[in-house]
Amino acid sequence: MIRIGILGYGNLGKGVECAVAKNKDMELVGVFTRRNPDSINVMTDGVKVYHESEIENMRDQIDVLILCGGSATDLPEQTPKYAALCNVVDSFDTHARIPEHFANVDKASKAAGKTSVISCGWDPGMFSLNRLYANCILPDGKDYTFWGKGVSQGHSDAVRRIDGVKDCRQYTIPIEAAMQSVRNGEQPEFTTRQKHLRECFVVAEDGADLARIEDEIKNMPNYFADYDTTVHFITEDEMKANHSGLPHGGSVIRTGVTGLNNEHTHVVEYNLKLDSNPEFTGSVIAAYARAVYRMNNEGQTGCKTVFDIAPAYLSNLSGEELRAHLL
Amino acid sequence: MIRIGILGYGNLGKGVECAVAKNKDMELVGVFTRRNPDSINVMTDGVKVYHESEIENMRDQIDVLILCGGSATDLPEQTPKYAALCNVVDSFDTHARIPEHFANVDKASKAAGKTSVISCGWDPGMFSLNRLYANCILPDGKDYTFWGKGVSQGHSDAVRRIDGVKDCRQYTIPIEAAMQSVRNGEQPEFTTRQKHLRECFVVAEDGADLARIEDEIKNMPNYFADYDTTVHFITEDEMKANHSGLPHGGSVIRTGVTGLNNEHTHVVEYNLKLDSNPEFTGSVIAAYARAVYRMNNEGQTGCKTVFDIAPAYLSNLSGEELRAHLL
Repeated sequence: MIRIGILGYGNLGKGVECAVAKNKDMELVGVFTRRNPDSINVMTDGVKVYHESEIENMRDQIDVLILCGGSATDLPEQTPKYAALCNVVDSFDTHARIPEHFANVDKASKAAGKTSVISCGWDPGMFSLNRLYANCILPDGKDYTFWGKGVSQGHSDAVRRIDGVKDCRQYTIPIEAAMQSVRNGEQPEFTTRQKHLRECFVVAEDGADLARIEDEIKNMPNYFADYDTTVHFITEDEMKANHSGLPHGGSVIRTGVTGLNNEHTHVVEYNLKLDSNPEFTGSVIAAYARAVYRMNNEGQTGCKTVFDIAPAYLSNLSGEELRAHLL
Repeated sequence: MIRIGILGYGNLGKGVECAVAKNKDMELVGVFTRRNPDSINVMTDGVKVYHESEIENMRDQIDVLILCGGSATDLPEQTPKYAALCNVVDSFDTHARIPEHFANVDKASKAAGKTSVISCGWDPGMFSLNRLYANCILPDGKDYTFWGKGVSQGHSDAVRRIDGVKDCRQYTIPIEAAMQSVRNGEQPEFTTRQKHLRECFVVAEDGADLARIEDEIKNMPNYFADYDTTVHFITEDEMKANHSGLPHGGSVIRTGVTGLNNEHTHVVEYNLKLDSNPEFTGSVIAAYARAVYRMNNEGQTGCKTVFDIAPAYLSNLSGEELRAHLL
């Protein structure tokens, strides 16, 4: 059994917990938190909640520690810190800071003889893998990534910070005609506005100026100004009834040409349609936790990404079984 | 430069030749054939054609030999033979015989300190990879593979063997309603007939009994009897004008559930739409030739499949570049 620890019990921590329950060769040994452990009830029978400070004492009972904090401030500190104690997996997704994060985690893991994976999930993660495979197969081509339809937590949070807004759920929606043009192999160039729409469901405070809120949303730089955005004001009850999930997904498409005269076009497309973004992300992380565990047992230490891990490490089947049943 | 040799100059050999031309770090050092070398003209300027028997003398000039023969009789003999001389890649696709083929090639490669990849292409190959990844991420789920729309060479050949048939092109067509049901997460059970249609374009000999030919096609066991098949009789000119390409493709879809009560469904889908089956297969093989070359330089010898190869080996970019641009 691979003994898993979870640090951080938000949406992602719960998603990892669900994923561990689906993998027969894994068991959850504990959930660790910065909060008061007594304030948290986990879903898995018999699993205890500990304060984060207990990780060091319990490190011999943990084969892989999964770090479920945020990329902005938690992971840059937590992942190197715990990589020096345990094998770890995180879902660090601040693209610009990946080189620095990788270097810090690699150094800590190597010094401790441990193995780590950073930036694991679906984007970065499975989408990255599909970009890499398709780029290597079709060097003469062009990449497209579409996101959604799904809830963007960052955009929802940005709207919630507007004065007079009680709650918001923001959906990112890919534009079907743009995707179709890509699938036709036309290799179009798009503006930001041509690829995605944004749709906001907003609960406003009583008496708030709805026109001003809508205006602030639509003109918010970086988040909305470059997109066509629609805003719907709804009640708290409607929010709860119709927008409580965290669905997401998207498509990575590469089109490329082959042939002496580039006469043949190929379309490689990877699609995800996810009812629960955190549970799917947690499921990807669980598979890579298995890889980390096995690679560490083989003495392959240091920091890895999805690019560095042979797919067979993700599976609990033997090479013979994989070749017989999945090849 | 990675120096590539090609053994066998049919459709796949030509596809590999086109792929090598697209990869700036590769050069084609020769095409090898069992036929009279003078009877073959290759597309790449300055590349010579040699008799197969020259491979042994030229092995020091070849970093990776790509075996482009057929799975029925060529590869079971050729791959182990040349794995004892060179790093090799083949596209062996007789699923039932993969364990035996793997063992033979592994033994030869290991004894020679060489590296080999078998069963490389898109199915087996990229489809297998996508089955593996999706199975590891969603252990509680169900796999579906749909092929087409595309030309099945095996089915076209089977029809050509019927008395009175001069030529045939057979298209395998996935049934859209079946794919849609899978994408809806319904996890349906299908009969063979419910997943694919078969469509045949046939050139008959003058005076042949068309009704008898159509009947023989539709009732041919294994190939057609379990499918709904349509047969169109066309002229040789129509065949040439409308059916000279070798398009193919298909979809690997896995749907699975997560959540404490399996309340969330996820759909993972990988699609290929290929204008030229052999050129795309050749393109996958070229990327794996790079991996074989690099793994051999690192001392990783023996037989591998796509499952055993970390994705980064397929790329000519460094780890830093991959993390910065594709993660």
